[in-house]
Amino acid sequence: LFTKSLLEQYRERLRTELDRVVDFWLKYSHDKEHGGYFNCLGKDGKVYDELKYVWLQGRQVWMYSRLYRTMERFHRPEILEAAKSGAAFLQKFARVQASGGPGKCAFCLTRDGRTVKVQRTIFSECFYVMAMDELSRITQDKEMQADAESMMDRLIFWVQTDSSDLGRPQLPGDPPINSMAVPMMLLCLVDQLTEGRTDVAEKYKDLSGWCVERILQHIQRDGKAILENVTLNGKELPGCQGRLQNPGHALEAGWFLLQYALKKGDVHLQKTAVDKFMEIPFHTGWDKQHGGLFYFLDVDGHCPTQLEWNMKLWWPHCEALIAYLMAYGHSREPVLLDRFKQIYNYTFTHFSDEEHGEWFGYLSRQGEVVLDFKGGPFKGFFHVPRCLYMCEKLLDSLLERQDS
Amino acid sequence: LFTKSLLEQYRERLRTELDRVVDFWLKYSHDKEHGGYFNCLGKDGKVYDELKYVWLQGRQVWMYSRLYRTMERFHRPEILEAAKSGAAFLQKFARVQASGGPGKCAFCLTRDGRTVKVQRTIFSECFYVMAMDELSRITQDKEMQADAESMMDRLIFWVQTDSSDLGRPQLPGDPPINSMAVPMMLLCLVDQLTEGRTDVAEKYKDLSGWCVERILQHIQRDGKAILENVTLNGKELPGCQGRLQNPGHALEAGWFLLQYALKKGDVHLQKTAVDKFMEIPFHTGWDKQHGGLFYFLDVDGHCPTQLEWNMKLWWPHCEALIAYLMAYGHSREPVLLDRFKQIYNYTFTHFSDEEHGEWFGYLSRQGEVVLDFKGGPFKGFFHVPRCLYMCEKLLDSLLERQDS
Repeated sequence: LFTKSLLEQYRERLRTELDRVVDFWLKYSHDKEHGGYFNCLGKDGKVYDELKYVWLQGRQVWMYSRLYRTMERFHRPEILEAAKSGAAFLQKFARVQASGGPGKCAFCLTRDGRTVKVQRTIFSECFYVMAMDELSRITQDKEMQADAESMMDRLIFWVQTDSSDLGRPQLPGDPPINSMAVPMMLLCLVDQLTEGRTDVAEKYKDLSGWCVERILQHIQRDGKAILENVTLNGKELPGCQGRLQNPGHALEAGWFLLQYALKKGDVHLQKTAVDKFMEIPFHTGWDKQHGGLFYFLDVDGHCPTQLEWNMKLWWPHCEALIAYLMAYGHSREPVLLDRFKQIYNYTFTHFSDEEHGEWFGYLSRQGEVVLDFKGGPFKGFFHVPRCLYMCEKLLDSLLERQDS
Repeated sequence: LFTKSLLEQYRERLRTELDRVVDFWLKYSHDKEHGGYFNCLGKDGKVYDELKYVWLQGRQVWMYSRLYRTMERFHRPEILEAAKSGAAFLQKFARVQASGGPGKCAFCLTRDGRTVKVQRTIFSECFYVMAMDELSRITQDKEMQADAESMMDRLIFWVQTDSSDLGRPQLPGDPPINSMAVPMMLLCLVDQLTEGRTDVAEKYKDLSGWCVERILQHIQRDGKAILENVTLNGKELPGCQGRLQNPGHALEAGWFLLQYALKKGDVHLQKTAVDKFMEIPFHTGWDKQHGGLFYFLDVDGHCPTQLEWNMKLWWPHCEALIAYLMAYGHSREPVLLDRFKQIYNYTFTHFSDEEHGEWFGYLSRQGEVVLDFKGGPFKGFFHVPRCLYMCEKLLDSLLERQDS
């Protein structure tokens, strides 16, 4: 009974917070002149730069659409319109003709859609797929759905067959590696595309198996560490790159794996997801002195070369909340609820901005706000609302089962 | 007399410090197996990554050679050998065949010289020129000198005529800009190549004029701000990019300009160098709360989007020491000596490592060491020894004149 009332308190707070976050972006981020969204919003919501980041545009379209489709209180015309505006902007401007092969998307655009930067990676394209698939589920737009699927096929080709269209030269000292982000991202896309579609699930069955295998290769050091980069056959890489740990990313991979394993009924994988991808990053990543999760760590205790290594970023905490609540909801192990509580307390006392709404993204190791904007080149309408949305859903399901 | 004794104290400390720094790199950074230098050295000098960064290799060759050539106590065979080893490594491995046009150098190599990364900028090539020119002045190696000059011609072609060999696609939303680093770097190279050579000075006369003009375009806001990026015709750019200030870089440009103006006897430019490129970054860049120079600032007071904006880095302090001492040596304005003192006190109480030698590079805003390595992907044998070397020379000259 005590737990139930605590979970209800959490749900209440998360729900209020989600409403505030959605309101913030609806109010400040929409570009009524050119369509799409402003990404760079100051602490009070004011636009401080007009650049539009394609991956953040895609994430925002996805988030609006998902909220509209799956949560009754967000099933409002203005939210659907917001999603459509971003999708139209992306369909019109995201693809670059000048460089890269067919399908290559820009990383960054001017307010009116001219290409500013193209990254030689797959992430802009990944969020393009997420956006178009989710929105087309609402609008039943078959063309948009086909657009998402054809981009997905291109992504798989780049990752599994030939990446030369990405424009990255093959260099003799830089052989291809297994970087955690790639199989994670593809597993996330498979989850997106296959929801409620058995034919598509069948099509991507091998791919999801491949993603899981690639993610599991990041368990290293006799099962005692999760490393961010490994060789293509799952061995440790030399140097800083090989020793890098990213606790937030491991936790995100953790809930992706757990979600997949729950659907498949794979008990062994469920255990691996929790024991390896949730427990290890907690023990290595939690700052015992000042609280919060470190951004980067070196598995041998060297100093990482990333200047921001000891900062506390919002998104690892978002991913940790989802991970521990999902794991707790599944196993009801009290220690997992304790983890959730610990992250929750740090998160809500440090990141959430009571004055203007939304969350700060970047704290010093000591927990002070170092960058005070709400949106920037790497922070959009995604990790915060996805976390609040997922946690609310998880709590709904937990409390429902508790009642029955 | 009081000032004289103070200047002598400074010189003594700087001299001891330079000896320790040179010893540190001689002892820990040399790769006796493959040639060249390890760049990634922990706080105690241990190699924590074997990657070799081409621009840092070039800087180290230059620094050893310059010390050997111009300071009696460093005119030692081991220092010349050290320089030669790095130059041979660079000549053998720096140039990439696979991507970019002729002359394009790698950014990063494996220990045995295989290309890891190529940047689509000019900076690896710039330090290649510095290295080869300085070493060839000692060895009288005409081929090496010609190698430096032909790379210089290539650089000028890339910057002034056609940059397409750098591999950066022209994108409609990203027109070419005047970024402070480029004219600064070329002015520095002209200073290097023309020393004692009137024919070469004649050849590059227009180029140095062009560099100075481009640097002066960064004076903006009615002469009240130095901005890091402007348009090609010297106007302010929109957004974060346009509002960016980098106080350390402005100070470095300041002493480049002052040095040039002193040689030319251009009194007006001398004044501009001090009033604009030294006074403005001091007033905007000095952290009145915790001391030290900020890394990045936004001219309108927005929060910069660089996560490290409020950190205190070693190199802006190195450049500030050179700038204020050079300016003081020229004008004997007490306020400039005060600036030097203030930076000096912060620098020597925060960056210098009494235990293991060399300097820490990266402090929090509050002045604590956040990254404790002595060498890394962006910190080599350059800013610290160049600062100590330049300041010692400046003090020699100041004290000599005071005596006479």
